[in-house]
Amino acid sequence: MPTILGHNFIGGGRSAEGQASLKSVDASTGEALPMAFYQATESEVNQAVQAADGAFLEYRQLSPARRAEFLEAIADEIDQLGDDFVATVCQETALPAARIQGERGRTSGQMRLFAKVLRRGDYLGARIDLALPERKPLPRVDLRQYRIGVGAVAVFGASNFPLAFSTAGGDTAAALAAGCPVVFKAHSGHMATADCVASAIVRAAERTGMPKGVFNMIFGAGVGEPLVKHPAIQAVGFTGSLSGGNALCKMAAERPQPIPVFAEMSSINPVVVLPEALASRAGTVAKDLAASVVMGAGQFCTNPGLVIGVRSSAFSEFLTQLQEHMGSQAPQTMLNAGGLRSYSKGVEHLLSHPGVTHLAGQAQAGQQAQAQLFKADISLLLEGDELLQEEVFGPTTIVIEAADDAQLKQALLALRGQLTATLIGEPGDLVKYQWLVPILEQKVGRILVNGYPTGVEVCEAMVHGGPYPATSDARGTSVGTLAIDRFLRPVCYQNYPDALLPEALRNANPLGLQRLVNGEWSNQPID
Amino acid sequence: MPTILGHNFIGGGRSAEGQASLKSVDASTGEALPMAFYQATESEVNQAVQAADGAFLEYRQLSPARRAEFLEAIADEIDQLGDDFVATVCQETALPAARIQGERGRTSGQMRLFAKVLRRGDYLGARIDLALPERKPLPRVDLRQYRIGVGAVAVFGASNFPLAFSTAGGDTAAALAAGCPVVFKAHSGHMATADCVASAIVRAAERTGMPKGVFNMIFGAGVGEPLVKHPAIQAVGFTGSLSGGNALCKMAAERPQPIPVFAEMSSINPVVVLPEALASRAGTVAKDLAASVVMGAGQFCTNPGLVIGVRSSAFSEFLTQLQEHMGSQAPQTMLNAGGLRSYSKGVEHLLSHPGVTHLAGQAQAGQQAQAQLFKADISLLLEGDELLQEEVFGPTTIVIEAADDAQLKQALLALRGQLTATLIGEPGDLVKYQWLVPILEQKVGRILVNGYPTGVEVCEAMVHGGPYPATSDARGTSVGTLAIDRFLRPVCYQNYPDALLPEALRNANPLGLQRLVNGEWSNQPID
Repeated sequence: MPTILGHNFIGGGRSAEGQASLKSVDASTGEALPMAFYQATESEVNQAVQAADGAFLEYRQLSPARRAEFLEAIADEIDQLGDDFVATVCQETALPAARIQGERGRTSGQMRLFAKVLRRGDYLGARIDLALPERKPLPRVDLRQYRIGVGAVAVFGASNFPLAFSTAGGDTAAALAAGCPVVFKAHSGHMATADCVASAIVRAAERTGMPKGVFNMIFGAGVGEPLVKHPAIQAVGFTGSLSGGNALCKMAAERPQPIPVFAEMSSINPVVVLPEALASRAGTVAKDLAASVVMGAGQFCTNPGLVIGVRSSAFSEFLTQLQEHMGSQAPQTMLNAGGLRSYSKGVEHLLSHPGVTHLAGQAQAGQQAQAQLFKADISLLLEGDELLQEEVFGPTTIVIEAADDAQLKQALLALRGQLTATLIGEPGDLVKYQWLVPILEQKVGRILVNGYPTGVEVCEAMVHGGPYPATSDARGTSVGTLAIDRFLRPVCYQNYPDALLPEALRNANPLGLQRLVNGEWSNQPID
Repeated sequence: MPTILGHNFIGGGRSAEGQASLKSVDASTGEALPMAFYQATESEVNQAVQAADGAFLEYRQLSPARRAEFLEAIADEIDQLGDDFVATVCQETALPAARIQGERGRTSGQMRLFAKVLRRGDYLGARIDLALPERKPLPRVDLRQYRIGVGAVAVFGASNFPLAFSTAGGDTAAALAAGCPVVFKAHSGHMATADCVASAIVRAAERTGMPKGVFNMIFGAGVGEPLVKHPAIQAVGFTGSLSGGNALCKMAAERPQPIPVFAEMSSINPVVVLPEALASRAGTVAKDLAASVVMGAGQFCTNPGLVIGVRSSAFSEFLTQLQEHMGSQAPQTMLNAGGLRSYSKGVEHLLSHPGVTHLAGQAQAGQQAQAQLFKADISLLLEGDELLQEEVFGPTTIVIEAADDAQLKQALLALRGQLTATLIGEPGDLVKYQWLVPILEQKVGRILVNGYPTGVEVCEAMVHGGPYPATSDARGTSVGTLAIDRFLRPVCYQNYPDALLPEALRNANPLGLQRLVNGEWSNQPID
């Protein structure tokens, strides 16, 4: 196991003013691991934010290329976290080594992708309207706009992606790319992992000469509230439960200066199985869908929690096959005991609901999660029953059977906001059911055809977002390069001397940007 | 006077279910105008929102070119509002005819500018990551992203721009361009104006075959709350007071589904006068600054409410001249009696504060606003006295004298968020005081050099926004084409058949867009 100090990370150093009262747990055995972590005191929370705020002015003014070097150095450091590190992550999360190795690559790849965005420079949003001194009735002055970071950002990582959505995860990468120093709240479910990754980030910051407070991390219970309420924090990134996200949004809205919260919270990710697909390949769909539901013990934001189809003999046949696949899944260890408790409780709620039928799955008992399949009466969806709208985080899914297309439409309209919706269909289905798409566009952030939502590619075009309660702000994404937009704001310079302008806006276009000049895109210098 | 029906505008028709209890007032005489306006009932508020929501699906799916036609038709209709219309606006607002004629052109010009943005299509944010079936260890699926409107938008217009920031103003134009139907709450200060402009929009909608609920307008007191709380409203645009904006933000955050509010609220727009400029042209600066302060009776969001300089004989000389200019201004009629009351109260607060000295201005009395000049001790700013942070809406400004550059820096750091900051300086000043700029960048949305903030150009590069309390969300602007971003959200299509994709994302690139394809910008079709 790598050396784990367990101290808070503040301004490039380590701090342990509080008690070493926090223990990480072996997710498979439930036993406490040997090392201890220091609860951040309120003073340490403040110091961490002050360190981030203190670094902001220098950090945001570094050239995009300098910040790209930093992100690439983080990527290199993360790639070098070796087998002992992977073993630590596996111990804390019960996730298999291959998954963690893949997630390590995804995390460093994400940093490198944001480095590319920085070098490309379009995130700067450079716009120039040249002076029109002869314009009548009034002349136009020279106006130039680009975007800068909003300030220090607080990030809350997810339990289910100990690397890619945590310490050096998507929100951290997006904030650092935007020029915003970060204060990261380590997740209690993988504090040793967090300690290793934070150390890697700090090494990268030192190696590339970043200001000391560019990244900070605090451990402990109850530190989220003073963190979000600190006046120097200017935005919040969060991945977790609906109640957790709502609480942060409320705190942020009630501050003397309200700030935006980008919370990715709750999604049941409906999958619509269309008639021709069922007629031609019900068996494959049932098998692949079951695999997506139980993948990683169902611990994905994009886990398909709802399967909808129109009543037919093919649909019944599909259900029988889905029942077989779901009934034959091996139990799996979840990320932590709290997650297993929540899952068991969610399954109990479903079992005890008169409108819900249990179709497959062993009784939930012991230390592992059993895959479960339910069928719910469509009236629950149409009447807005909460049970069908709330995510049950684990290897379970609920089938809904619509009487006809009209009822299918009503069912989709009754859904709340989602991260994804999936259509399983043959080409003929997709044409016939094209009317579904505009409905889904208004409900979700990503529409998939003939795939399963559990794979989230980190790329330019990804949207991992969607209307409430999937997220707190449908205008953002927490995966993919558009995520940087959440932490940027525009600033305009009027009649400003060229030599003193930010490089992005100078006539000579030294960064070689695509800029909107007098309403037309150009990568040329201005004469 | 044009025909003013005074009924609410709902779904392309007129509705008068409530009482004709609302009267508009001649701003110069204080007397009620003959026509009456119908208070919208709660049922009418709901109908208006339902009409907008009902129009959303069709309206957002119209091609950008079709929506551009609509905006251009609105522009034409507004240009055709003639002299009798201008007279009505002048009567309701006491603003001079030349100003209203100019504002009419600005309002139609704004619509045409957004039409250009629609035709250019970059607001769609098209991004394409092509499938990489051979990629190891995992293939990449085809992913494509673009942006759609968020849904029905509620807009609250401003008293001080009865055309450009009102019924057909910037927020309405941005929302309609984004594909979002609008429910506009008519400002009580210019209901006859609003009636004429709403009629013009409805004529344009009919002429271009838009869905009936694309634009709706309601009259009355107390209709804002049910409007913002209606579940179908998905975003709010507001221009007005800090207390009004805060109240809307609170309502929006407390909804079962929270929604974003873009409120432009309170700004004192500091002007920093630098030493060499004072040495070389104190007289001109004093004259121009006074003109900016009293322009339009000071009723601009960007009115310069704070003037800061470093103590020197040149600064004292400048003050003397500013005193002369401010003392010799004629009184002006304000937009309405409420505005005059607020102004008088604001002036009284300043007069009664022990840290504030009155430098120029006739005693406030009668029906008009007197220009006023004050000087405040810098300690008020450094200690965070509310009096110096809150906008006094009217022809007044406060001078602050810093002992030295260090104190100037402290004073700027003590400012809250602002729409603008202005530097008055010679080339040497701007180099010597370049350290001010990064501070100002974090405080404001627009930094001006050797100009005055009261002119807000409608263009691509303008930012009329800034950190709280200038606005509720520093990531937006309410003037200029970037304003459209506030009402858009990204949607991603995964593995979607080309023929069924939105035009913006099809391989053939039928809209001729600049698209981010595999991380590189291209306006070419995809083979």
